[in-house]
Amino acid sequence: MKSLDRLLSCFRRMPGIGPKQAERLAMYVLRAPQSDIQDLAETLMETKSAIRLCSQCCDYSEDPICPICADESRDRTLICVVEDAQDVAAVEKSRTYRGIYHVLHGALSSLRGVGPRDIRIRELLERLSHGVVAVSEVIVATDPDADGETTALYLASQIKPMGIAVTRIACGVPLGGDLDYIDEWTLSHSLAGRRPLEN
Amino acid sequence: MKSLDRLLSCFRRMPGIGPKQAERLAMYVLRAPQSDIQDLAETLMETKSAIRLCSQCCDYSEDPICPICADESRDRTLICVVEDAQDVAAVEKSRTYRGIYHVLHGALSSLRGVGPRDIRIRELLERLSHGVVAVSEVIVATDPDADGETTALYLASQIKPMGIAVTRIACGVPLGGDLDYIDEWTLSHSLAGRRPLEN
Repeated sequence: MKSLDRLLSCFRRMPGIGPKQAERLAMYVLRAPQSDIQDLAETLMETKSAIRLCSQCCDYSEDPICPICADESRDRTLICVVEDAQDVAAVEKSRTYRGIYHVLHGALSSLRGVGPRDIRIRELLERLSHGVVAVSEVIVATDPDADGETTALYLASQIKPMGIAVTRIACGVPLGGDLDYIDEWTLSHSLAGRRPLEN
Repeated sequence: MKSLDRLLSCFRRMPGIGPKQAERLAMYVLRAPQSDIQDLAETLMETKSAIRLCSQCCDYSEDPICPICADESRDRTLICVVEDAQDVAAVEKSRTYRGIYHVLHGALSSLRGVGPRDIRIRELLERLSHGVVAVSEVIVATDPDADGETTALYLASQIKPMGIAVTRIACGVPLGGDLDYIDEWTLSHSLAGRRPLEN
């Protein structure tokens, strides 16, 4: 069946979808009411056309400026730099951050051939040098892996000369974790990053 | 973002898609080229409108009669009854079956309230009593679980009085399996179903 084969190959292109899961999804499409599938197809097209990048932080947004950048109550002197849009949601869930964001849409990677021009670093540097409000601190919250660290170091080398503080989120033992089960790299990071106990 | 929320809830309705995977799929939609998503949306609608049930075996098909039922070289006196369309593909992959199929689209289940009228049993019985070619054997290849067994027993009670042989696929130790790791129910089935060694 030609249309089914095309559907399977569409599903296979999606992240985390293997051949078995693609088959299950295709069977769902065949079984589901016509209205559900029409709804899905329309929502796909609508999402694709309605959502663009916020002109300030590069996060996905339906408006030219995203709700966080438009929120007057947020601290505009503090920018948290993350790799992906999902990371913004993760930091927001912690409910402790009141600054604004910048979404890079990736991380530098020599292995995958991702250079500074391939992610939204230029937009960040422009915000810092030509923004209306002077930024006092950039918190680099890229992932704690090789690419994330490379990106953090590169950003620091570009931003520090502007006289803006650049900080990195703390790496260490997760809360509720069991030392027994923590990998040695995290533990050594956690030891190196030890801080005096305040009482 | 309203359209993104709608897209997430569309993905959440799909089988095997949890909240995290729905998020990943939504991010894929935002990142992917417009043409890929348009292709997906169009293929969804096309599949939904092009694919119906084969008028003979009830398998999904783009034509009124599916390729297997239309294949003149297949043995029409042998019908293999399966629960789902995927099961047809699984039996076909074994390359040993040359008969035709009947897809029930489910199994009887007192727990889930699925009765004989909810699945394609009526269509099977009609094929058997009014078919052009007299069927000599019905192989019941429903799943080897409680619902599949119930369905097999019900089918036998309906079909045997027609003078047609009803057989059940063999249950036992899978090839390449390790007896140590086989559950006790399978093993007891396998012992009960033992056959004389031919040499």
